[in-house]
Amino acid sequence: MSNQTYAIIGTGAVGGLYGAKLQKAGHKVNFLLRSDYQHVAEKGLIIESVDGDFTLPEVDAYNDVKKMPNSDVVVVALKATQNHLLPELLPPLVNKNTVVLLLQNGINIEPEISQIIGGNTLIGGLCFVCSNKVGAGKIRHIDYGTISIGQYFPNNRPAGITEQMREIAKDFEQANIPIELSEDLLLARWKKLVWNIPYNGLSVVLDARTDEIMANTDTRFLAEQLMWEVVAGAKSCGRIIDDHFIQKMLDHTEKMKPYLTSMKLDYDGKRPLEIEAIVGNPLRMAKEAGVDLPMISLLYRQLKFLDVRNQPDSKFLHL
Amino acid sequence: MSNQTYAIIGTGAVGGLYGAKLQKAGHKVNFLLRSDYQHVAEKGLIIESVDGDFTLPEVDAYNDVKKMPNSDVVVVALKATQNHLLPELLPPLVNKNTVVLLLQNGINIEPEISQIIGGNTLIGGLCFVCSNKVGAGKIRHIDYGTISIGQYFPNNRPAGITEQMREIAKDFEQANIPIELSEDLLLARWKKLVWNIPYNGLSVVLDARTDEIMANTDTRFLAEQLMWEVVAGAKSCGRIIDDHFIQKMLDHTEKMKPYLTSMKLDYDGKRPLEIEAIVGNPLRMAKEAGVDLPMISLLYRQLKFLDVRNQPDSKFLHL
Repeated sequence: MSNQTYAIIGTGAVGGLYGAKLQKAGHKVNFLLRSDYQHVAEKGLIIESVDGDFTLPEVDAYNDVKKMPNSDVVVVALKATQNHLLPELLPPLVNKNTVVLLLQNGINIEPEISQIIGGNTLIGGLCFVCSNKVGAGKIRHIDYGTISIGQYFPNNRPAGITEQMREIAKDFEQANIPIELSEDLLLARWKKLVWNIPYNGLSVVLDARTDEIMANTDTRFLAEQLMWEVVAGAKSCGRIIDDHFIQKMLDHTEKMKPYLTSMKLDYDGKRPLEIEAIVGNPLRMAKEAGVDLPMISLLYRQLKFLDVRNQPDSKFLHL
Repeated sequence: MSNQTYAIIGTGAVGGLYGAKLQKAGHKVNFLLRSDYQHVAEKGLIIESVDGDFTLPEVDAYNDVKKMPNSDVVVVALKATQNHLLPELLPPLVNKNTVVLLLQNGINIEPEISQIIGGNTLIGGLCFVCSNKVGAGKIRHIDYGTISIGQYFPNNRPAGITEQMREIAKDFEQANIPIELSEDLLLARWKKLVWNIPYNGLSVVLDARTDEIMANTDTRFLAEQLMWEVVAGAKSCGRIIDDHFIQKMLDHTEKMKPYLTSMKLDYDGKRPLEIEAIVGNPLRMAKEAGVDLPMISLLYRQLKFLDVRNQPDSKFLHL
């Protein structure tokens, strides 16, 4: 096992799960928390997982980045809607050799973070995991769990497999976190959008689970049409996604247990939705390359309308 | 005043209002009813209207077309979702000189009805009216009221202004029903869709009133984008809608009182939605002409999903 130490920024469904697994495997892990800080500092973390339940009665909890010791790897596991906090959170944690691992859905978020951390290594990660925070310091890991990582190079050019990616992968594997290495982070992000855009989007707009979307001929067709638009968006950025990948995603979703998507969970919890990272950014990237994605564009604006109305301080009259 | 007699097929928000106005003006009007038959046969019709309230204590009510006397003009005022009943309802009412006036939203419904009535004159009508049935035999006319009519010629070719249109127009004007004559029914129908597709569609999918759609930048933009697609659909059928018409519709809607659209009222009432007439038919007409309307196509399938789930016997689990 490496000696790498970890800082987890955002100890929720994703950060809490993976941070706890790393600590359980023997790593030094520092957790940043906000609302759950007091509870976790006193009682630690409880993980209910399909891979086996476990408890960490003692964790190094912090509620202020300035008090956190240095770590080799800083894992950003906030929702993308919280990224406006990063210019404040990251600088105190980043030294000469710090690696930042960004575990977030969506696309084209790295340029902004790269600005904050300067020349430091930035690795993007996509979590294929079904996991929820069910209480203070309590995380329920329901299904899946693989992380796919790829290093960010300026202008999103492919970075190949780097030494820093391998080191992180070794740690994660030893912590029983399945991990895949991507030579091309942007391609990996576009591929994840093939699933995320249709199912996150439609689940919120239509108030539907994945199985409902797949059981109805019209929404199943819609999901597929939206996937084709994502593939067209990827192509506009020079990333080719194989035609078979769409069928694979449809088949996969059909066999999945009925899930609420992460965006639907946020919507039901009246939290802001990751619309820009998951839907707005790919639209803008394609547009810059001269490609319109009209169906995704309609979905985008429907989601923005619903997101605004869903906020607790919304002035909308609900009918 | 002409001696023309009228039969009203479907004595609801539209048929009840206009039929009552025709009878009040002195015409012989026969009303076909279903669930409200007993009530209306005994107590007549009550009209609460912005143009002035009135009551018709006695009306000629029927619950069986075979018992209805012949009329010169048969007004079909059913929802388009009920048109599967017309092969049974129309033939007993149509003789050599009977004119059929179809008061329905949507497009390309006439060919099917023309099949049923053979060589008889078929006139299509669009109602710009805000009117609801609020109880048995009781109709509330809230705003507007103009009818636009145009004669149907095979293959939707423009019919110009015909003698039969003029005769109906004279009767309606004398009954204080504002009426416009269209030389080209298909163009009139496409123009009405410029409003109907965005506002009916979005109001159901987003659970929103017209004023909410206009107040939000994203949905206002969406409404406009959808209007442009309708204009492209019209063009694919050789019908040119002036660019200014879109701005006119947006301005008009902005100044309207907050309304629920007719499709939203149907949705809230758990009645089947007029999706095929209003959204499916224009999509198919454009497609046959080789033109895709991707945003309308997405809206169409979202609506179909919601419509199925909204039916009382739906097997969906509501979350």
